[in-house]
Amino acid sequence: MGDNDGLKQLRRSDYAYFLSYRTRWSDNDQYAHVNNSIYYHLFDSIVNTYLITHCGLSPTRSNQIGLVISSSCRFYSPVSFPAVLDLGLRVTKLGKSSVTYEVAVFEEGQDVPGAVGGYTHVFVDSETRKSTPMAVRTREGLAQICAGMKDSVASKL
Amino acid sequence: MGDNDGLKQLRRSDYAYFLSYRTRWSDNDQYAHVNNSIYYHLFDSIVNTYLITHCGLSPTRSNQIGLVISSSCRFYSPVSFPAVLDLGLRVTKLGKSSVTYEVAVFEEGQDVPGAVGGYTHVFVDSETRKSTPMAVRTREGLAQICAGMKDSVASKL
Amino acid sequence: MGDNDGLKQLRRSDYAYFLSYRTRWSDNDQYAHVNNSIYYHLFDSIVNTYLITHCGLSPTRSNQIGLVISSSCRFYSPVSFPAVLDLGLRVTKLGKSSVTYEVAVFEEGQDVPGAVGGYTHVFVDSETRKSTPMAVRTREGLAQICAGMKDSVASKL
Amino acid sequence: MGDNDGLKQLRRSDYAYFLSYRTRWSDNDQYAHVNNSIYYHLFDSIVNTYLITHCGLSPTRSNQIGLVISSSCRFYSPVSFPAVLDLGLRVTKLGKSSVTYEVAVFEEGQDVPGAVGGYTHVFVDSETRKSTPMAVRTREGLAQICAGMKDSVASKL
Repeated sequence: MGDNDGLKQLRRSDYAYFLSYRTRWSDNDQYAHVNNSIYYHLFDSIVNTYLITHCGLSPTRSNQIGLVISSSCRFYSPVSFPAVLDLGLRVTKLGKSSVTYEVAVFEEGQDVPGAVGGYTHVFVDSETRKSTPMAVRTREGLAQICAGMKDSVASKL
Repeated sequence: MGDNDGLKQLRRSDYAYFLSYRTRWSDNDQYAHVNNSIYYHLFDSIVNTYLITHCGLSPTRSNQIGLVISSSCRFYSPVSFPAVLDLGLRVTKLGKSSVTYEVAVFEEGQDVPGAVGGYTHVFVDSETRKSTPMAVRTREGLAQICAGMKDSVASKL
Repeated sequence: MGDNDGLKQLRRSDYAYFLSYRTRWSDNDQYAHVNNSIYYHLFDSIVNTYLITHCGLSPTRSNQIGLVISSSCRFYSPVSFPAVLDLGLRVTKLGKSSVTYEVAVFEEGQDVPGAVGGYTHVFVDSETRKSTPMAVRTREGLAQICAGMKDSVASKL
Repeated sequence: MGDNDGLKQLRRSDYAYFLSYRTRWSDNDQYAHVNNSIYYHLFDSIVNTYLITHCGLSPTRSNQIGLVISSSCRFYSPVSFPAVLDLGLRVTKLGKSSVTYEVAVFEEGQDVPGAVGGYTHVFVDSETRKSTPMAVRTREGLAQICAGMKDSVASKL
């Protein structure tokens, strides 16, 4: 496919927060590569891990939670179990009550992403599920990995 | 969220092919609603069922297969297990070797979609995984559910 | 494999409660049949649907929940996407605070199960997660589908 | 639950081959712990990784594959995302055409397993799916991690 959006040009150095995920047998579909849906499971995993470990979010106790309102992904090259995937995370838009994350998926040893995607979270009250301004601590944590701010972050994570 | 793209205005009558999917216990994440990633599993399911039943595709024997190169979804209202979801499918772009599908997710009894998304398949040779013009039978099947052609299709499916 | 436990001899008429599940594209692993793990997702789905619809359980509001302490399955013949699977559920052991479910998986039109398995739930307080006697309404609902009681149940479900 | 089978007494030192798996957001079900079905996905993952890396198996090219004919698991203590899980694998029965694996799941830093389970593979011809004696290289690889042989294995893996 084309690369009108320039996502394919992204490199590891564009991301501030990384986690490695071991693929699972059932990630491969019958075409013997990791199924497209699995990437979204991984996006959810790195985002929520960051929210828990760096933004003070507790999925079971916080009074606000992030709900996904839109998501997308572009797939450039397939990967297969049992590959280990390095995911890089950054924030590309930080609003008052919403945040857009971008995640790049790298195979071990590769600097060109096999896929780049992400999603937008709106923070809502965990009971009423109504939109609410994000907590200060959440916002501060997310600000740490905003695109273009990676240098200042690298030393803190 | 906003609705600049008008997807939220889509109704059941905009789609030509439907399948109902029973949600599963593990579709709900710890926020007690169907996780965003699950929608992509469902997109894959209705698309591939249509390819198998109406386009002559056999995932294990055909010499061409469809690979996903990009996907996206917008989420308007959550659903929860044990809901049964009605998925509507149509083709919004039909190229020489690629096709873009749109899938709307309706709760039983609802005419307003809870989510609308989809993806683009590029057809490739099943061995070399190189792009190849889609088979005539595949194209004919997909043409049946192109957006705007639903009237002629309804009687055939 | 052998059939020392006689599970393979079970038929649809041995079960009192049925639900049909459409398989999903990603249920098939790279051997092109529904992966063994998926059966457990389906067990969880029919069991929890029954608990919600016939036993008064609300996963988000009840003050007791069922936790799985052991599970098992025997696989006799494979199934593949896009098959629709009929699941039959019965209770094979009903204790004071625990219950053992058995689930048989039938392909459409087949009376011989492709797989038979199940699990044991211990009911616990939803906050403390300590074992607790199951609620009267839960027990009554489960008693309706105990093995050997299907005749009296069939007319009520 | 009881421990009539002694599985709860197993420790890390009883296993010869280990892999660590990062849990994913969607592994947690709405009770906020890793769903029972996920353990089977992990069993499949460590077993097939071992078969690929130590037994010469290629899921897409080998002329024999392992099919699961029975599986089971006992759950002793729950784990939750974003925990990292250490899985230990050993073979408890090695036949002519079948093998039984046991997998213990440990939380990081714990020596008492949170769950112990496994499954039996029958090796079959990848085309006919008929049972066939397992390849010599496969058998040799599996013999390396037979229960009771861990000392001799530890230095080789």
